[in-house]
Amino acid sequence: MSASPRAGRETVRGAMGLPVVGMVGGGQLSRMTHQAAIALGLSVRVLADGDRDSAALVARDVVLGEHTSLEALRSFAAGCEVVTFDHEHVPNDLVQALEADGTTVLPGSTALRHAQDKLVMRERLAALGVPVPAFTPVATEGDVEGFARHVGWPLVLKAATGGYDGKGVWVVADLEQAREVLRSGVRLLAEELVPLVRELSALVARSPEGQGAAWPVVETVQSDGICVEVVAPAPGLSEESSVQAQELALRLADELGVVGVMAVELFEVPTPSGGTGLLVNELAMRPHNSGHWTIEGSRTSQFEQHLRAVLDWPMGATERTAPWVVMANVLGGEGEPDLDRRLHMLFGRDPGLKVHLYGKQVRPGRKIGHVTALGDDLEQTRQRAREGAAHLADGRWVH
Amino acid sequence: MSASPRAGRETVRGAMGLPVVGMVGGGQLSRMTHQAAIALGLSVRVLADGDRDSAALVARDVVLGEHTSLEALRSFAAGCEVVTFDHEHVPNDLVQALEADGTTVLPGSTALRHAQDKLVMRERLAALGVPVPAFTPVATEGDVEGFARHVGWPLVLKAATGGYDGKGVWVVADLEQAREVLRSGVRLLAEELVPLVRELSALVARSPEGQGAAWPVVETVQSDGICVEVVAPAPGLSEESSVQAQELALRLADELGVVGVMAVELFEVPTPSGGTGLLVNELAMRPHNSGHWTIEGSRTSQFEQHLRAVLDWPMGATERTAPWVVMANVLGGEGEPDLDRRLHMLFGRDPGLKVHLYGKQVRPGRKIGHVTALGDDLEQTRQRAREGAAHLADGRWVH
Repeated sequence: MSASPRAGRETVRGAMGLPVVGMVGGGQLSRMTHQAAIALGLSVRVLADGDRDSAALVARDVVLGEHTSLEALRSFAAGCEVVTFDHEHVPNDLVQALEADGTTVLPGSTALRHAQDKLVMRERLAALGVPVPAFTPVATEGDVEGFARHVGWPLVLKAATGGYDGKGVWVVADLEQAREVLRSGVRLLAEELVPLVRELSALVARSPEGQGAAWPVVETVQSDGICVEVVAPAPGLSEESSVQAQELALRLADELGVVGVMAVELFEVPTPSGGTGLLVNELAMRPHNSGHWTIEGSRTSQFEQHLRAVLDWPMGATERTAPWVVMANVLGGEGEPDLDRRLHMLFGRDPGLKVHLYGKQVRPGRKIGHVTALGDDLEQTRQRAREGAAHLADGRWVH
Repeated sequence: MSASPRAGRETVRGAMGLPVVGMVGGGQLSRMTHQAAIALGLSVRVLADGDRDSAALVARDVVLGEHTSLEALRSFAAGCEVVTFDHEHVPNDLVQALEADGTTVLPGSTALRHAQDKLVMRERLAALGVPVPAFTPVATEGDVEGFARHVGWPLVLKAATGGYDGKGVWVVADLEQAREVLRSGVRLLAEELVPLVRELSALVARSPEGQGAAWPVVETVQSDGICVEVVAPAPGLSEESSVQAQELALRLADELGVVGVMAVELFEVPTPSGGTGLLVNELAMRPHNSGHWTIEGSRTSQFEQHLRAVLDWPMGATERTAPWVVMANVLGGEGEPDLDRRLHMLFGRDPGLKVHLYGKQVRPGRKIGHVTALGDDLEQTRQRAREGAAHLADGRWVH
C-alpha cells in the first residue's frame, strides 16, 4: 500500500485521534457531509458565510469567513488536516496559495480548474478525445456569427465561470439575442444546441491512491435549468452505455487527478445510426445533487465516500439497496410553509419516504430539501417521490 | 386525526419553523439522534455534562449542565418544544417537576418510572399478566433466604435503580455472597436465575396518538453483561414467537403510555413441553443498543423513529433492507489506538461494512462505536461484523 498523501505533513487531529476535515462552504452539501462524518467519528469543520447557513445550523465546529479571502481560508485551513469544498467558488489562485503553504487541499487546484472554468474543461476534454458538444470561446459578435455558420441557430452561450442551476447559460435564437449576452461582459463560450434525448449523470469517486468507485448512471430531469428529479439507475439505459459512461467518468477522474467525488453530467443524444451517444456537459468535483439518492439508495453514500476519498481511506461499496431509487428536490414556494404539519401529513401518507430538509430559509424556487423513494416498480417509486416533494413544497398532492 | 399533544402549548421553533427537540444526556444515543435529526431539518438541543461528550462534539446546540439539577433542566427545557432522554438517570421527581411547569416531556414521568425502577417495572408487568422471572424485593438476609427456598441457589440480586451494562446485577451462589451485596445498602430485588436459551430484544415505537411500529425481534449476545452483538432477525425464532414478542412490546408501550422508542429485553427460556417461552428482563424507553442495526438495516432507523414519535409525526416503515443484519459493538482496548490506520485497513478489507464511532475517549471495555454488516448469508454477515469490531477494538483480525 502506498504512503498516504497526508503522511509526513502536519496532522490536525480531533476526537479519537482522527483527522479534522475542513469543508469550505456552509450549504446543504456540507450539512450532509457532516451528517455522514458523525458515523465515522469525525466532525466536519465548516467555513460558512453566516451562522444560519445550512451546515452551520447543525455542525459543532463552524468558522465564519469569506471563501474569497485568503486570510480567512488560511486561518481556517490551519485547523484542518485536509480541506475540501461544498462548491466551486473559491478562486483557483487562492487554492494554489493554500497548497503552497503546505495545506492538503482535495480536490487540488489543478483538478479543480476543470470544474471552475467551462472553457478549460471543454478544451481539456476535447484534447483527451472525450465527446463534447461543438464549442468555441467567443468575445465578439463576429465570433458568435462565425460559430453559428457551423452549428446554426439557436445556439448556447455560457459564462465560462460562476454559473450554477441554469444561471450563466443562455439559449439564443439569433444574433440580436446573442448581442445582449455579450453586453454583460462576462467571459463566454458558445456551444451547439444539441438535440437532447435526456440528461444523465455518472457519479464516481477517486482516492489519492487512485482507487476508483462508480455508482450506477442516473437520469436527471431538469426544469428551468434546475435539477428536479433523479432516477437510479437511468431507465432503459443499455448495459453497454452505462458501463461506457462509468468508464469515461473514472478515466476523467484519473486523467484530471481528482480526489473525492466527481459528477460527470452527460447529454444523451441521437446518433445518425438511430441509436444514442453520450456527450459530456459539465463536471462537478464534490458531492452532487445527482448523488443525493445514494444516502439511502447505495451501501455507501456520496458524502461518506467523499470523506473516505479525501482521507485516503479505501472506497466503500456502491451497490444499490433497491431496484429503483428516485430523488425529487423540494423547491421553495410562496410564503412561509407549515412544514411541521406537512411532514405530519406526508409521513402519514407514505411511511417509507425518506425526507431531507436543509434548514434553509424558504424562497421561491430555492432548493430547500429533497425526498427519496425506494421501490420495486419504477412508476410507483417516481410517483411517490414527486408527490412527497410537491407536498413539502406547497402543501398540494399531485397526481 | 386527533389534536397533537403539543397543540396549544408554547412552541419553540428552530430552523424552517420546525420544533426544537431537547435531549438530556450527551452520549452516543444523542449523537446518533442528532445525526438522524439533520435529515428532518432539525438540530437536536443537547444537555451534556461536558463539551467532549459524544453528542457535544458534533451538535451545534449544546447546553452544559447536570441532569440531576432541576435548575439546569428547567433552563434547558425553556429552549425546547419537547424534551426527551438519552438515558434513564434523570430523577423521576425532576421529570414530574418539568411536567408541572407545562413542559412536554416524552416519555413522560409515569411511563419512565418503569424504565428507571426495576421493582416498579416487575410489579406492574406481573400485574398485567406479562411473563417475568420470579422476583421479590429484598432488604435483609432473611428476605433472600426466604426467596432462595422457592427458587434455589444461585439467584440474582439487582439494584432497583441505576444499573446499566451489567452494573448493578449480581449472580450470588449462596447467602455469604448475598450478604456482601446487601451490605452495599442499595435498594434490591431478588430474581430467579432463569435457564437461559438466549436473549432477545423487541424494539418498538409509539406516538402520542397511539400509533405503534415494531422492528423485527433480534437476538442480543452479551459478554460480561455488555451487549456485544445483535443479529436481526433473531435466527431460528418462529414466526409465532416473533409476532408474540412484538405484540407484547406494543401492548406494553400502550399500557405504560410510552412515547418514543422502547426496547423490551427478553429471555428465551425452555418450557416443560420442550419448546421455548419468553420472559421480560428489562425495559428501556429510548433508542437502544439492540436497535443500532436499524440505521442501515431498516427503512426507518430507531433514531429517526424516536424523533417522529416525540414530535407526533406518523411512524416510519420498519422493513429490513437486507435478509441479515448484524451489529457488533466496538469496545475500547488497552492504550491509544491508531484508528485512522485501522479504518484504512478495515475499509480495504470490507468495503460494505458500515462503521459508527462515537468520538469518545478510549477506555478498556467502554463502548466506543459499532459496526454493521448486511448480507444474504447469516454466518458470513456475522463473521464480517465480528472481524470489523475486533479490528477497530485492538487491531487484530479474528477468524
